[in-house]
Amino acid sequence: MSVTTKATIASFGGKLLKLSHNATTTRCEMSFNLYLPPQSQTQKVPVLIYLSGLTCTAENCSEKGFFQHAASKKGIAVLYPDTSPRGLNIEGENDAYDFGSGAGFYVDATKAPYDQGYNMYSYVTEELPQTVFAAFPQLDASRVSITGHSMGGHGALTLFLRNPGKYKSVSAFAPITNPINCPWGQKAFKGYFGDEQQAKWKEHDATELIKKWTGGPVDMLIDVGTGDNFYKQGQLLPENFAAAAKEAGVQGLNIRYQPDYDHSYYTMATFSDDHVEHAAKYLFA
Amino acid sequence: MSVTTKATIASFGGKLLKLSHNATTTRCEMSFNLYLPPQSQTQKVPVLIYLSGLTCTAENCSEKGFFQHAASKKGIAVLYPDTSPRGLNIEGENDAYDFGSGAGFYVDATKAPYDQGYNMYSYVTEELPQTVFAAFPQLDASRVSITGHSMGGHGALTLFLRNPGKYKSVSAFAPITNPINCPWGQKAFKGYFGDEQQAKWKEHDATELIKKWTGGPVDMLIDVGTGDNFYKQGQLLPENFAAAAKEAGVQGLNIRYQPDYDHSYYTMATFSDDHVEHAAKYLFA
Repeated sequence: MSVTTKATIASFGGKLLKLSHNATTTRCEMSFNLYLPPQSQTQKVPVLIYLSGLTCTAENCSEKGFFQHAASKKGIAVLYPDTSPRGLNIEGENDAYDFGSGAGFYVDATKAPYDQGYNMYSYVTEELPQTVFAAFPQLDASRVSITGHSMGGHGALTLFLRNPGKYKSVSAFAPITNPINCPWGQKAFKGYFGDEQQAKWKEHDATELIKKWTGGPVDMLIDVGTGDNFYKQGQLLPENFAAAAKEAGVQGLNIRYQPDYDHSYYTMATFSDDHVEHAAKYLFA
Repeated sequence: MSVTTKATIASFGGKLLKLSHNATTTRCEMSFNLYLPPQSQTQKVPVLIYLSGLTCTAENCSEKGFFQHAASKKGIAVLYPDTSPRGLNIEGENDAYDFGSGAGFYVDATKAPYDQGYNMYSYVTEELPQTVFAAFPQLDASRVSITGHSMGGHGALTLFLRNPGKYKSVSAFAPITNPINCPWGQKAFKGYFGDEQQAKWKEHDATELIKKWTGGPVDMLIDVGTGDNFYKQGQLLPENFAAAAKEAGVQGLNIRYQPDYDHSYYTMATFSDDHVEHAAKYLFA
């Protein structure tokens, strides 16, 4: 459970820590970043987990997402996990940007050979938080929210919907909301679960999950840019998610279609203040 | 003078344009970025020029500096030039990170072979603004401020001090303030001017320039991180600059030594709001 500190960087009055640990679930050393806001020097602070998209590491959003701007004002720590195991030497894991390395999809793979370490669901929901809360007692394990971008938006939505009560709030940027019906999701679930495991596929599909949601209204902030090529190509399918929620009678979805915004970190930087505000509403309720 | 638009990216309610033009002074195609705040759709807006440091292009600060955040609120355009000519095929121009490509030092070289295009002083003070103001009539050519980081901080300070009245205000992050006395500056000036041109060296040294400043007080905001390795290594020498200003009786310098902050864009992101505020005070005076 021990954590290695690789760098400590001053940022918005707090510290961004570049960390790593030997993870059991993913069978490798995992890097991650943790932003400690200035308030953490004198009090326990809640945590917002940010899940990154395809190809990303913990670095991208730490550098370009500007979550630290609002997190430092609100007194919220931000945890940036990596997006997959690294260096497992599984055949084919580095062959494509949308599968294997950098593309763990926040599931526990059941199909060989990816069942040998591609367990990002267990890693993000259990092992990483346990490690971080043990190492940083200034973090409040009872107050955790989750957000993410693209594949990480899929992660945020599915982890929230699969674990009622575990996260105080959820939001997402350009999330993949219906992976069983988009090329990215189909490729990933085929590789991690296998073609025949359709029930398993549905367990990790936000649109399927919200159909079965019985937890009442969910105040869910989702930003999708209308200039996002992946939205236009049908990788994100927020309309499917909205329709499923409506049909299931789940109220509270706030999907904002942001004119002209694309799939990049420029979009995240623009709206990250709003997403931190959204989390703060529940983390400090 | 025509400008090619390579990309238009929504950012903080405005547009970040990725542009290029064929430059006469630098004898090559030059890329640059321009952030147009939302206010530019209905009114003329002033311009803040941001000069980047060694190795950078227009991209780094556009993505990681967070200037758009405050610029969008204030209604200020931000112009991000490149840091050198590109692809001139001058022998040795790609051999080091701190000389040649990515390291134009905002001077007009007088020594062969770099006098064949390494004219970033003329480019930034004349050709680029003329090009931009011709192409974007929504920009107010009479209201321009300047800022920059490291080598770009040197650029901001020297361009301001060499051209009284040209810029409404100046600020800098971790600027090289006394290049004739630091390794980076000595290497660059030797290569661009030659060893024997000591008078020329002084013409592009902020500490030498402020000794001769007769323009009265200068409200100059400078942030230097105490955790900045290049500061510790004597590349920046802000104490020399402060001492020279004091001896010359130039008042108004506000050098803030920021505890633990390093030389990275994390520092810029943290304080860019302050620097945009600083510029706004004069651009809207």
